[in-house]
Amino acid sequence: MATELKGLTKRSVNYSQWYNELVVKAELAEQADVRGCMVIRPYGYAIWEKIQQELDRKFKATGVQNAYFPLLIPKSFLSKEAEHVEGFAKECAVVTHYRLKTNETHDGVVVDPAAKLEEELIIRPTSETIIWNTYKNWIKSYRDLPILCNQWCNVMRWEMRTRLFLRTSEFLWQEGHTAHATREEAEDRAKMMLKVYADFAEQYMAVPVIQGVKSETERFAGALDTYTIEAMMQDGKALQSGTSHFLGQNFGKAFDVTFLNRNQEQEYAWATSWGVSTRLMGALIMTHSDDNGLVLPPKLAPLQVVIVPIWKTDGQLEAINGKVAEIQARLQEMGISVKYDNDDQKRPGFKFADYELKGVPVRVVIGARDMENGTAEIMRRDTLEKETVSQDGIEDYIQKLLGDIQDNIYRKALEHRDAHIYECDDYEVFKEKIKDGGFFLCHWDGTPETEARIKEETQATIRCVPYMFEQTPGTDMVSGKPAKFRVLIARAY
Amino acid sequence: MATELKGLTKRSVNYSQWYNELVVKAELAEQADVRGCMVIRPYGYAIWEKIQQELDRKFKATGVQNAYFPLLIPKSFLSKEAEHVEGFAKECAVVTHYRLKTNETHDGVVVDPAAKLEEELIIRPTSETIIWNTYKNWIKSYRDLPILCNQWCNVMRWEMRTRLFLRTSEFLWQEGHTAHATREEAEDRAKMMLKVYADFAEQYMAVPVIQGVKSETERFAGALDTYTIEAMMQDGKALQSGTSHFLGQNFGKAFDVTFLNRNQEQEYAWATSWGVSTRLMGALIMTHSDDNGLVLPPKLAPLQVVIVPIWKTDGQLEAINGKVAEIQARLQEMGISVKYDNDDQKRPGFKFADYELKGVPVRVVIGARDMENGTAEIMRRDTLEKETVSQDGIEDYIQKLLGDIQDNIYRKALEHRDAHIYECDDYEVFKEKIKDGGFFLCHWDGTPETEARIKEETQATIRCVPYMFEQTPGTDMVSGKPAKFRVLIARAY
Repeated sequence: MATELKGLTKRSVNYSQWYNELVVKAELAEQADVRGCMVIRPYGYAIWEKIQQELDRKFKATGVQNAYFPLLIPKSFLSKEAEHVEGFAKECAVVTHYRLKTNETHDGVVVDPAAKLEEELIIRPTSETIIWNTYKNWIKSYRDLPILCNQWCNVMRWEMRTRLFLRTSEFLWQEGHTAHATREEAEDRAKMMLKVYADFAEQYMAVPVIQGVKSETERFAGALDTYTIEAMMQDGKALQSGTSHFLGQNFGKAFDVTFLNRNQEQEYAWATSWGVSTRLMGALIMTHSDDNGLVLPPKLAPLQVVIVPIWKTDGQLEAINGKVAEIQARLQEMGISVKYDNDDQKRPGFKFADYELKGVPVRVVIGARDMENGTAEIMRRDTLEKETVSQDGIEDYIQKLLGDIQDNIYRKALEHRDAHIYECDDYEVFKEKIKDGGFFLCHWDGTPETEARIKEETQATIRCVPYMFEQTPGTDMVSGKPAKFRVLIARAY
Repeated sequence: MATELKGLTKRSVNYSQWYNELVVKAELAEQADVRGCMVIRPYGYAIWEKIQQELDRKFKATGVQNAYFPLLIPKSFLSKEAEHVEGFAKECAVVTHYRLKTNETHDGVVVDPAAKLEEELIIRPTSETIIWNTYKNWIKSYRDLPILCNQWCNVMRWEMRTRLFLRTSEFLWQEGHTAHATREEAEDRAKMMLKVYADFAEQYMAVPVIQGVKSETERFAGALDTYTIEAMMQDGKALQSGTSHFLGQNFGKAFDVTFLNRNQEQEYAWATSWGVSTRLMGALIMTHSDDNGLVLPPKLAPLQVVIVPIWKTDGQLEAINGKVAEIQARLQEMGISVKYDNDDQKRPGFKFADYELKGVPVRVVIGARDMENGTAEIMRRDTLEKETVSQDGIEDYIQKLLGDIQDNIYRKALEHRDAHIYECDDYEVFKEKIKDGGFFLCHWDGTPETEARIKEETQATIRCVPYMFEQTPGTDMVSGKPAKFRVLIARAY
């Protein structure tokens, strides 16, 4: 597959276009010929697999097990939980028939009108309903609890305006659904999973996040509380990167899931659900990448090191090949993924640009002169800095460098974010400043009316009530009414 | 979740019912409240995950990369490849609308008639069409080839009669789709992937398989050749466990996927596709399990060893706990999964029956007397044989035993199969004998007419032209016409 190296729009010119082009040029994903759906290409999927593996390991460490529930949900299930249907049942793909037949001219197929379903089936937009309908049969006593299930699957929400990874009609995600005997245990689980997400985002994706709880307006449909992690992109906009919901007994009641508690009384089961999706790919790309292409955190890069030889004679290449074989073997032993690209059909300059576009964290170049000197040139993708190092001990140098890059891009993203968080007490100032992006900590009177006004006048939304900032009472900057705390306000993806 | 231990129908009484009950009682899967769909429960899914991991590793070792393509396929795509549409486009779930709305009484939802799709979308029954429509944009020159993509996903074929794992409307699978510059390379790839499947089935699932090529009638719709692995269940019926298709240039032509070959000529790309599904779970269960429940190959068992203490006094339990902690730690170091079940709410007899039902390969019991003697009682699930061994070196003993069990259940399945393969030259004998199951090697004249007659009169089908038996010409047992080779005939799941 030919990589298109040229013509990547600069971030300063058009950040949005830069993103759209980068996703395609770096061969992460592309628009499918099916409205609103994407094809995730092998390079993009390899990153997603690394995300999956690590999250899956973290989930299982907390006792979660994977399972699989049906893709299709009977229409009537969606209306069993009143708030849920309001929030979710609308923009969905609806299956109405189960058979096609050959058309009259025998050159195509038509829907067989005789094969109409009695009850329409909905492609899952999320699976609370079908899963709680199943849990009903699994739960009799407190001894059957907790149930801690997760599934990795595809879901579908009919979106009118789509963008690769950020908002597509079909996307991949994991959805955890737990059932508990007590309210406290369920609340703890919802918070625990948010922490798992936050740790993963920061330690693996190198994306700093702000943890908090959503306002009532922004809550998941059917939740009593929605916890969220919010990341800041380079343009100062927020990207909601994961949510965890405390669902109370809403689904227990809707699907009649009761259990005999320790006091021998029938009680409705307590629920949580939590998910992250291929949206994380968007967060990863937009947080670190630059005008030359992707910048990937070493912990999630499908390829961590590439080695490129520069030679004139066959003898020179042979000598380099021999040396690289040793280096490659030692790196692989250390668990570092490495590729040696001695393809003689491509010029070094082409290779350099390609691996920069793909975000390979470390590039090693070895030329004939290096062989004489026992050296190699190393470039780190995050800063594009080059250094000449000795071939002796180069593996340890690279291992340390990968750690440095992981730390450095996190620090850089954190500094960028912290430099763009503002306490703001004046709505006029806010309205002006929000145009340039950033996170605003503002006092809020707690009413949906104020929230709606901010959204209407500035397109900014309350992202969350953040945990990490000290909370002080004050005056709502819009209504002038008393406010108990500050909320985080931003324009968001 | 309470396990229902009692009342598993014996295989000799009703093999089919035994299977259905076992899948549910062992908590592998259950029927969903959505027609023809299943819920894969955590214990069943844990086995599927082990299958996935190993296959995925084997695929990648041959250069395959994972990717993801859309769930929904525009109806018109299905009719682009003429044979494909005949074989596949019929029993499918059809999406016709993309929105629901609240009903007039505000207590439910109805399909919004205004949100009708211009072109219906089909939930993928298999993805050749959407993938080749995508490959069109990826392939320009022979330098872009081969493309070796695989996806792990869900697919849907509307089945009227379903059975858990064996035949469900929705199932999970992997589908590999490769594009090549030459016919030879594509044919080699199709055969290579069949070999990957066969090796996996035999070495991991401990299921012996017969490799071969399908007759024209039984070929995949759109294939020039379909290669298959066929396993024999305990009732003598065949279970097709994986297929690999050489698709020629059919999809290249249907989706206009051409490339500039080495001779600078435009040529259509050559294709393969290959898949295995959650059907493998059915093969695994039906090959090894017995009247006490599951028998799992150690290499795929989610839990390989369970240790159960038997005690009267707290002091005794404490001593056993201490000893087991040591054993457990050493087993885990060796990469063996182990659970210590000292739950005092369940009697040992209940635990024994439960772990037998679940097919845990090795059970270790340690009682107070064992502590005095420095011994433990070990039971292997495959033969139910018990042995008393020394606690010293028990970890090595268990490791070796797991290997023995893996080998033994394979050998047992192989002996059973080989004892039920018959060469048969007399159709009257065949018609009588087929009632008891078994694989029959019979001369076939190569005509679909004979094939159809056998199927109609005996419900048996030509499973494949097997590679592994020496081929001699002869006389078709049905038509009396000359036959070039013997084929494998059996009743099948």
